[in-house]
Amino acid sequence: MIITLNPLAGKVEVEQICQQLKNLELEAATLPHRPDISLMIYGVITENKLEIIRRLPKVVRTEKIQMPYHRASKQLHPEASVIQVGNVKVGGGNFAMIGGPCSIENSMQLEETAEYVKASGSNMLRGGAFKPRTSPYSFQGMGKQGLDLLHKVGKKLDMPIVSEVMSIDQIELFGDVDMFQVGARNMQNFDLLKELGKTNKPVLLKRGLSATIQEWLMSAEYIMSEGNENVILCERGIRTFETYTRNTADLSAIAAIKKLSHLPIVIDPSHAAGKRDMIESLALAAVAAGADGLIIETHPHPEEAISDGEQSLYPDQYAALTEKVWKLHQFMKTL
Amino acid sequence: MIITLNPLAGKVEVEQICQQLKNLELEAATLPHRPDISLMIYGVITENKLEIIRRLPKVVRTEKIQMPYHRASKQLHPEASVIQVGNVKVGGGNFAMIGGPCSIENSMQLEETAEYVKASGSNMLRGGAFKPRTSPYSFQGMGKQGLDLLHKVGKKLDMPIVSEVMSIDQIELFGDVDMFQVGARNMQNFDLLKELGKTNKPVLLKRGLSATIQEWLMSAEYIMSEGNENVILCERGIRTFETYTRNTADLSAIAAIKKLSHLPIVIDPSHAAGKRDMIESLALAAVAAGADGLIIETHPHPEEAISDGEQSLYPDQYAALTEKVWKLHQFMKTL
Amino acid sequence: MIITLNPLAGKVEVEQICQQLKNLELEAATLPHRPDISLMIYGVITENKLEIIRRLPKVVRTEKIQMPYHRASKQLHPEASVIQVGNVKVGGGNFAMIGGPCSIENSMQLEETAEYVKASGSNMLRGGAFKPRTSPYSFQGMGKQGLDLLHKVGKKLDMPIVSEVMSIDQIELFGDVDMFQVGARNMQNFDLLKELGKTNKPVLLKRGLSATIQEWLMSAEYIMSEGNENVILCERGIRTFETYTRNTADLSAIAAIKKLSHLPIVIDPSHAAGKRDMIESLALAAVAAGADGLIIETHPHPEEAISDGEQSLYPDQYAALTEKVWKLHQFMKTL
Amino acid sequence: MIITLNPLAGKVEVEQICQQLKNLELEAATLPHRPDISLMIYGVITENKLEIIRRLPKVVRTEKIQMPYHRASKQLHPEASVIQVGNVKVGGGNFAMIGGPCSIENSMQLEETAEYVKASGSNMLRGGAFKPRTSPYSFQGMGKQGLDLLHKVGKKLDMPIVSEVMSIDQIELFGDVDMFQVGARNMQNFDLLKELGKTNKPVLLKRGLSATIQEWLMSAEYIMSEGNENVILCERGIRTFETYTRNTADLSAIAAIKKLSHLPIVIDPSHAAGKRDMIESLALAAVAAGADGLIIETHPHPEEAISDGEQSLYPDQYAALTEKVWKLHQFMKTL
Repeated sequence: MIITLNPLAGKVEVEQICQQLKNLELEAATLPHRPDISLMIYGVITENKLEIIRRLPKVVRTEKIQMPYHRASKQLHPEASVIQVGNVKVGGGNFAMIGGPCSIENSMQLEETAEYVKASGSNMLRGGAFKPRTSPYSFQGMGKQGLDLLHKVGKKLDMPIVSEVMSIDQIELFGDVDMFQVGARNMQNFDLLKELGKTNKPVLLKRGLSATIQEWLMSAEYIMSEGNENVILCERGIRTFETYTRNTADLSAIAAIKKLSHLPIVIDPSHAAGKRDMIESLALAAVAAGADGLIIETHPHPEEAISDGEQSLYPDQYAALTEKVWKLHQFMKTL
Repeated sequence: MIITLNPLAGKVEVEQICQQLKNLELEAATLPHRPDISLMIYGVITENKLEIIRRLPKVVRTEKIQMPYHRASKQLHPEASVIQVGNVKVGGGNFAMIGGPCSIENSMQLEETAEYVKASGSNMLRGGAFKPRTSPYSFQGMGKQGLDLLHKVGKKLDMPIVSEVMSIDQIELFGDVDMFQVGARNMQNFDLLKELGKTNKPVLLKRGLSATIQEWLMSAEYIMSEGNENVILCERGIRTFETYTRNTADLSAIAAIKKLSHLPIVIDPSHAAGKRDMIESLALAAVAAGADGLIIETHPHPEEAISDGEQSLYPDQYAALTEKVWKLHQFMKTL
Repeated sequence: MIITLNPLAGKVEVEQICQQLKNLELEAATLPHRPDISLMIYGVITENKLEIIRRLPKVVRTEKIQMPYHRASKQLHPEASVIQVGNVKVGGGNFAMIGGPCSIENSMQLEETAEYVKASGSNMLRGGAFKPRTSPYSFQGMGKQGLDLLHKVGKKLDMPIVSEVMSIDQIELFGDVDMFQVGARNMQNFDLLKELGKTNKPVLLKRGLSATIQEWLMSAEYIMSEGNENVILCERGIRTFETYTRNTADLSAIAAIKKLSHLPIVIDPSHAAGKRDMIESLALAAVAAGADGLIIETHPHPEEAISDGEQSLYPDQYAALTEKVWKLHQFMKTL
Repeated sequence: MIITLNPLAGKVEVEQICQQLKNLELEAATLPHRPDISLMIYGVITENKLEIIRRLPKVVRTEKIQMPYHRASKQLHPEASVIQVGNVKVGGGNFAMIGGPCSIENSMQLEETAEYVKASGSNMLRGGAFKPRTSPYSFQGMGKQGLDLLHKVGKKLDMPIVSEVMSIDQIELFGDVDMFQVGARNMQNFDLLKELGKTNKPVLLKRGLSATIQEWLMSAEYIMSEGNENVILCERGIRTFETYTRNTADLSAIAAIKKLSHLPIVIDPSHAAGKRDMIESLALAAVAAGADGLIIETHPHPEEAISDGEQSLYPDQYAALTEKVWKLHQFMKTL
């Protein structure tokens, strides 16, 4: 339950109320993200206790917590969060244009990609070093060496970098990475989420292939409940009966998240569509729908890519799309 | 199979080729929507016959038909179709903004709605007279009387009208209606589709709840194969595991249809989301993705609507959205 | 609402109660399928009226109607229905083993199939004369001529026959057919359902590809609300993300239907799996789960079948399966 | 590629062939699970090399590897695997009846449950000590203490025990556990799978909520490719649009796995249905379909269970079901 106090209540009065709640065997914590003076109450609140609480001095309102996620919920944090990733802000009107290859393959490929990604006006660099592949016999990524390359290139071009972490023991290798990515397959790897929650580095949390909006927010809550509130949600297509596309982009997730949560949401049209020539349409749709960013795969030579070549944009396609994205993002602010 | 002839081939030469094909027990028909001189060949084409065909004078190319739908396919009709609905063009850069109530309830409700729909800048009016309801005990629509009201109001405001037809015996009641709508539940009611194909009135063909893109185009083909090429596709959300929304809007269908077909595609965000406050985000996304129109439910008093009240926009919401839609549609042409 | 009367209430007393309800502007109808004396009440029941009803003489209990389907519900009809199809009973412990080809192709094919289907111990014959095909260019069935063949063969072998009806205007052609089949694509063709409800011939109602259990029962209700209570439900696989099978057999539908409804349920493993070598496993599973019947495709020469050859059993497979099915059905009664 | 040798080939000849393959820059390994003498060939096999291989002495046949999973495939291991879990065999006609509570709550609850599970004729005990809960605020399990209780009770009753492992760092705590369980949410936690592959303890691998059959077998391959071939697959319901059941039991997975793989498959009707009164129907269906075992949740007082109470069987229900399961399992061998 949440109780809201008279805006004139002073620090001493708030402390008195907390003490009175303690006498009722209830814990209370202030809610820093609410514009009013509010307390969240933990413990079993009986009818009798509720009656007492309502009559406490300075208490003007009590309300139920509507959602099973608290920290991810808009109720406890009405304003949109702005997450700082390196020198880039995401959310609250700040847009992230994240580009890069699916897998980091070698130094030349990464540098070449990063340069045109930067030149096109993107503000963040992605690249996979640890790859969750369906087959144990497929390329599993360059590992730590890939992260080092990514760091070097990101630093040179002054772009924050994001890369996928697959297990707890990899966390310590991500010291130079600006944002962890949790992949769709690990969205409910709760032990991993808890460990990431003990860091203070931003986490890009992809939605699971068949995760409901609520389950996705509950997974964000796993990270946030450990103290790390720097979570960015990423929709990357859900699994449906349709086989023409790799997955089905659920762009209604944008409006849903904006209504339920204060966390930014980024769209990944590359994995959603799985087809290069559908990316632009989906990316622009995401911007118009109100997304806080895009994460898009590109490769200097998609036909030679080790993974996901058929969904990677050619350099000129990527540049053209980025230009449109920024123009549309600016235009949407005028509507 | 399709064969393309030398652009200099004259009428007589084309006829000669058709005769030679006939001698091979093959039928041929010219393809009016291709920019080149092309013939479509029907019949079993053996290796030997193919060899002969390739050596016929004026034949410059043979190509396989790639898709099981022919008339709906871009291969036989490379340019985007423009469908004329009353005085409104849809497709090929022409945008349809279709608004109105889910069900026609009475004269006053319909007139009031139609007036603000028109005033907001919409160019087509929707209204259900025959309602496919899950329960036999729910309101089944005003029937013919509803169609008459719709016609009267549409005529007064000079707006073409669209309404759902549910069975073959209703077709004759739609004389004054400018466009048939086939609902999601009837997308594979093949006998109905064939009968609509025998008219020359436009058909707004909604995608079935769990129809693949290909099945949807095959249903368009059922209409077109009977001679009626005036088909407009309408995506209205597919059925997935997600329960937060009524259905899941599949906006990637826009890019898919643009790639596979020449038919226009309109988006119905009302049924897709099922929640009023998600409509705007999805509608703008659809415009940015390249949709040829929108069909949106609105009601003067949604809380009193007989059906679908929770997804119907309030008049001021509808007007505000329509304005944004047109501005965005114009802007997209500049990108 | 349902009210239950004292079992000693006489006819006159029931009539008096009905009159008293009428005075309250409520309609009442007796419920013939309930073991107790019960009345169903139609109309708006206010708190005040409810109070009066409860105090009426002989009224011992009032209960809410739990489900939106009434006639299909177990609440109004606690005992399992037994549906008579020709000389065969289905439901309430009576098992239907229905076999035959997907499409009726010609006299010889049908006779040959029917003979081994009969010889194997099956008690009903299936065969498609009107075929709902995804493509307008595929074989659409032999039509009336096919029905005539089916009738002739069924009569000769003394087996009731079942065949799919696709539209209202076909109904009159089914005079000699013992049971209508409504296909998955027409499960929500409500006008067709209503017309079938005006006949008294049994209807085998297939579940739509993405219909929920509740929607399926609502479609049964459409038929029953017009007076025809002879409905048999048929699960034939639902559409999911899995591509290995044609559809996903939802065998949990058996337990669900047994709990919610009194109608018999038959399983179609042929369309569910779409693969010949999976039929036996699913068919036996359905019997063990408590299904009231099976409908299975078989063909004398599956590799030459016009439609669905890959899921049609060879004659010897069909015979072997039928034997196992009957043995297992008997065994289940001993558990 | 696989090459099969003349059955009369001696050890020396096989070695010679391996040497000749090495000269072609190909690696070869014998396939111990094939009844014939077969070699699996690794490396790039050009047309020229294939020609040479076919002419090598003793080579009688070459065949492509059909599936991306090798060790899980029936092609390399035609006979059904029998997995030894403590003193119980699973697969190849040996049936596992696994019962126990969702969560281990305390010593008394576990002992009471285990005693009636054992008495009913079950041969394995399940109990969750680490619980993957959607919410971080839900009970997360008793942890190591729970495993110790499970071990104590299993030892006393002479039943092998199975419990879920959620992360790599928990593996070492499972020394006394007879079989690891990998939950649906971790089916593609590839790092965990690889680590389990380095042990030689059996792994019960649950299918992910939206995993295809092929993805599931690929996850088994992750474990097996590290050397641990003791994998038992467990179907526990997939996520579909249906909301009446918690998930949709995919019993066609039984026939599919039997066709594609040699690994045993066990069914979990508790999580599939999520409703106590549907368990029996699904459990018996699974036995009839050919499953190698069942894993079922039961609790002495389901209404007081900390988790999954609504799907836990009462003790008498569990006992009655177990008796039917064994009878049916025996009967199926006579069909």
